[in-house]
Amino acid sequence: MSDNKKSGISRRGLLGATAGGAAIIGGAGLSRTAFIAGSAGLGATAMGAGAAMAQDASEATPPPGELDEYYGFWSSGQTGEVRILGIPSMRELMRIPVFNRCSATGWGQTNESLKIFDEGMLPETKAYLAAQGKRIHDNGDLHHVHMSFTDGTYDGKYLFMNDKANTRVARVRCDVMKCDKITEIPNAKAIHGLRPQKMPHTKYVFANGEDETPIVNDGTMLDPKDYVNYYTAIDAETMQVAWQVMVSGNLDNTDADYTGKYAFSTSYNSEMGMTSAEMMESETDHVVIFNIEEIEKGIEAGDFEEKNGVKVLDGRKGQNKKYTRYVTVPNNPHGCNMAPDGKHLCIAGKLSPTVTVMDVTKFDAIFADEAEPESVIVAQPELGLGPLHTAFDGKGNAITTLFLDSQVVVWNIEDAVRAHNGEEVDPIKSKADVHYQPGHNSTTMGETKEADGKWFISMNKFSKDRFLNVGPLKPENEQLFALNGTELTLLHDGPTFAEPHDSILVHRSKVNPKPVWDRNDHSWADTRAQAEADGVDLDDWQDMVIRDSEDPTKVRVYMSSQAPNFALDMFEVNEGDEVTVIVTNLDDIDDLSHGFTMNNHGVAMEISAQQTASVTFVAATPGVYWYYCQWFCHALHMEMRGRMIVHPKAA
Amino acid sequence: MSDNKKSGISRRGLLGATAGGAAIIGGAGLSRTAFIAGSAGLGATAMGAGAAMAQDASEATPPPGELDEYYGFWSSGQTGEVRILGIPSMRELMRIPVFNRCSATGWGQTNESLKIFDEGMLPETKAYLAAQGKRIHDNGDLHHVHMSFTDGTYDGKYLFMNDKANTRVARVRCDVMKCDKITEIPNAKAIHGLRPQKMPHTKYVFANGEDETPIVNDGTMLDPKDYVNYYTAIDAETMQVAWQVMVSGNLDNTDADYTGKYAFSTSYNSEMGMTSAEMMESETDHVVIFNIEEIEKGIEAGDFEEKNGVKVLDGRKGQNKKYTRYVTVPNNPHGCNMAPDGKHLCIAGKLSPTVTVMDVTKFDAIFADEAEPESVIVAQPELGLGPLHTAFDGKGNAITTLFLDSQVVVWNIEDAVRAHNGEEVDPIKSKADVHYQPGHNSTTMGETKEADGKWFISMNKFSKDRFLNVGPLKPENEQLFALNGTELTLLHDGPTFAEPHDSILVHRSKVNPKPVWDRNDHSWADTRAQAEADGVDLDDWQDMVIRDSEDPTKVRVYMSSQAPNFALDMFEVNEGDEVTVIVTNLDDIDDLSHGFTMNNHGVAMEISAQQTASVTFVAATPGVYWYYCQWFCHALHMEMRGRMIVHPKAA
Repeated sequence: MSDNKKSGISRRGLLGATAGGAAIIGGAGLSRTAFIAGSAGLGATAMGAGAAMAQDASEATPPPGELDEYYGFWSSGQTGEVRILGIPSMRELMRIPVFNRCSATGWGQTNESLKIFDEGMLPETKAYLAAQGKRIHDNGDLHHVHMSFTDGTYDGKYLFMNDKANTRVARVRCDVMKCDKITEIPNAKAIHGLRPQKMPHTKYVFANGEDETPIVNDGTMLDPKDYVNYYTAIDAETMQVAWQVMVSGNLDNTDADYTGKYAFSTSYNSEMGMTSAEMMESETDHVVIFNIEEIEKGIEAGDFEEKNGVKVLDGRKGQNKKYTRYVTVPNNPHGCNMAPDGKHLCIAGKLSPTVTVMDVTKFDAIFADEAEPESVIVAQPELGLGPLHTAFDGKGNAITTLFLDSQVVVWNIEDAVRAHNGEEVDPIKSKADVHYQPGHNSTTMGETKEADGKWFISMNKFSKDRFLNVGPLKPENEQLFALNGTELTLLHDGPTFAEPHDSILVHRSKVNPKPVWDRNDHSWADTRAQAEADGVDLDDWQDMVIRDSEDPTKVRVYMSSQAPNFALDMFEVNEGDEVTVIVTNLDDIDDLSHGFTMNNHGVAMEISAQQTASVTFVAATPGVYWYYCQWFCHALHMEMRGRMIVHPKAA
Repeated sequence: MSDNKKSGISRRGLLGATAGGAAIIGGAGLSRTAFIAGSAGLGATAMGAGAAMAQDASEATPPPGELDEYYGFWSSGQTGEVRILGIPSMRELMRIPVFNRCSATGWGQTNESLKIFDEGMLPETKAYLAAQGKRIHDNGDLHHVHMSFTDGTYDGKYLFMNDKANTRVARVRCDVMKCDKITEIPNAKAIHGLRPQKMPHTKYVFANGEDETPIVNDGTMLDPKDYVNYYTAIDAETMQVAWQVMVSGNLDNTDADYTGKYAFSTSYNSEMGMTSAEMMESETDHVVIFNIEEIEKGIEAGDFEEKNGVKVLDGRKGQNKKYTRYVTVPNNPHGCNMAPDGKHLCIAGKLSPTVTVMDVTKFDAIFADEAEPESVIVAQPELGLGPLHTAFDGKGNAITTLFLDSQVVVWNIEDAVRAHNGEEVDPIKSKADVHYQPGHNSTTMGETKEADGKWFISMNKFSKDRFLNVGPLKPENEQLFALNGTELTLLHDGPTFAEPHDSILVHRSKVNPKPVWDRNDHSWADTRAQAEADGVDLDDWQDMVIRDSEDPTKVRVYMSSQAPNFALDMFEVNEGDEVTVIVTNLDDIDDLSHGFTMNNHGVAMEISAQQTASVTFVAATPGVYWYYCQWFCHALHMEMRGRMIVHPKAA
């Protein structure tokens, strides 16, 4: 069964290989010395068909003034933000702060953003943060970003993303490209793999809990046998947790099928080991298949325990309920990618040199107990060392990253099935070197039924000598390839800051953001309600200083901005006042953002065209302080300023 | 005298023009409708010689695997970080967090970074932050980044940068490309322009205080006539303030000469007005010239007042001391750029369509009171609307950005001097459209005596329709041009997140960072000293949990990391303990960074090869929490984790 055995590759040999360039010693003639320690040029000598080197990057880069054809939505790993790139230019068009604190926009500081953090936060996290003297977790580990689907393809409505660091799932509105929801997931720990339901539309966002914890995690239950993992379904509209399924093994990546019936996750550490050695004991792990319809029926029937406000079903191995099935695969499987043919699910081997292909049309039979779980495996091609993720060209071919080989391999799915059935056919069509150690990959529209196979991105974990040396910390490197049939042509090296973990490439016809905000956007509904209570009309040019009628130490300063002026060039408060500054940007011209920075007060925020934003601070120090516009707006931008006068407390 | 009068351009006309695209009505036949409201293509119809459009961006972009020729060091405005770009590829190689909080590296959270924030912080800021429940200002407005000089050219040692938002100056070590000093500047407010001394080496970093405040700023002194501004010199090695000069008018940009004798700043609001209208009353403002030698003599002679620990000299207009001279120029001057010829200082007019050229060899005479201040003006060419900054090709030509015209103009300095002397010569050699509204600009090595005139960057404040629409907030756009003699050829559009305020382009031969850290780097000297006191050898593979002998609620957890393992796969603490985790990365391979994230604790940091870093938090919530490595390091990176067990308090 184990492909490790079939290929004779020793697991220990793989374990001994560091990413940094140690020799990789395999079992069955796969010995080779790593080439990454040398110069960039050495990569071209590696085994397999090398990629043709583009003679000319202008094949890919639109000339100045022309638009890219695709939006690239990029996760940023431990940076905690989402990035938008233009594809094929590979240039960063925008950062969207999500789990991080952003100095430029005031994300994590404005009242409007703090509300988003607060609303989805669990009570124990509020208590923990209070003990640290903090308001929010201002870091995140954003691995995956995926768009909402309708009928198997992107609908341009939302992006969803995970935070492994602090166990959260967030959403970005694609109409304004801003985060509007952050939901902390109870019970589970370390949300890792994340995917939206593809069919009939994204009702659920599926999220993997990677790290196991005791069923009751209060420090009293410490026996590893009491540890469990959770699979979470989040309602895509409300961003509330719909249900969870308790599972065996650490959940890694996840995906959903093209019927809406199934979701599935790779799972390592089926041993439920606590140490590296324990986690590697078995030669196999598994893929968990979730039966959405049966789970919904189970919820309906009350077959759940309520735990921290969430309906939790038991889908652990051996429960043999209708909710889950476990398919054995070689150990530590990683990538979990549904092909656009609607039929083939590709499970990357990581520690096995294979991709296990499952036929999802056979899943009904295993849930009906008419077939063994492993009967769904229809191919298991051996592709190279360290297969991590698979992307698709929509023409029957798959492209898999090979971490240890620092290559990507193009292979044909049907040929792999034929080979599995004993035919003499090599599914491998070509290999291309990448620089270095690829993780995720993506193709244009590749995770939808509209995969078009135009461009391919390999997201590589190390750049080493590929760029000018910038010190001990190096950028990652993502490389853009043209797909010409089954040949890959390297066009761009794309250095990026930590960490281009994953990406999706979305045709520009699918996305249509607003050029300016609606003045009444619900993002600042609370602020608007407070303004109404204060008798202030935010739709008018406002310049009001309101002292709260109940608590006179609270002051609200309403001002509008119109380049190059704030409506107020001065306001006065008293030492110790809690000051809330509310700014409405009355400019309605495309790209005319204003900012509000209060000098020496650590206060700054973005107010884009027609937006309202607010920030609260304590005027703790008497004196004169200038506020100014920090988003360039006008020839007299630098002169756009005003004074806050903080009067000292009466002695 | 006023060039506004000469050209007949009405100041009010300029004031009425918003950056966003209103009609710009000038006086002397300069009327034109703005073209930015239309499509990107319209730009090409603007007046002046248009830039030749590059047929092929591959002229500029090195093919994959080849290195860029120049480092670009980029400020990021309100994002608060420094960026490193490769030039001419225009790709971002690294972010260096400085005034911002960085989720990926732990900047603003690790003990080593907090020490840097703390050391340079003024007592009143500590008090203010305490009142907000905050530890640091986690935002900044980083306008300018400049490298240290030796003998008039870059020496590759340090980068210096300002924070306008919270009145700070910081330094980045170029050997590791990390910030090592953040100094908050007393007395002054809103540090804006910043430049290092060029000759004989960077002894001082000069920094402009932009906003005026009362001499005693405690909320009791409110009459605008008591407001002053400060020019600050910071010792480049200690990063302590060396001295300040009190001046009249709001200081804007600054530069230093090639003898080491003088520094100079543009200054607007010579009126010392508090409102827009008051600030615009006069038709003129000034440039302040600082006589370094005389200032040092004044300090020596005790001609200063000590104010908040700083020696402050009085160099206000009308004092007529040896420290300063004021040269009248058209109002609201902006850019202040010293030409590599060592002779010509170029002052951009902003509200005047001129650049005022001063001959710095004439400065001795005005300080000797042998000549009128304005006698140093040797040219005042009329170049176009909204001149902001000037860069140099090292061949006698200057390139000035024209904000309102959305153009850059190439002109010859000597020709401008000849024209000023009555000769019939047009100094303007060419103009090129930029997209849109340029601010700063830079040329390769252009602010050094080794200016080579190879590439030119125009940093533009608006991108509008130049890229795929990403919602109300757009990227800025910096454009790369080849300089062919005095012709500019556009090669790249470079979208970037807020705000590519300024940049320098440094030949790669000048910069030579270390590939990995020195194990004993002084950045973690305190951590090392504590380890020694704890009997822990950080140079060994450590796995120690130490409970403080004096305060048993303080726990220090020492662990090393070596891919794919932490030395500790578990540690135990008690609810309420203050836990410090110290990690040393023993891997010594180029590019092999580790990370430490404590799940659900908002704790994450980078530990690059051979680095030591630490983070402190309160273990407030009993339970089991996994920590993991979040900087990709190995095929088994995901399995690199361990458990913190927090035992509940005894009931």
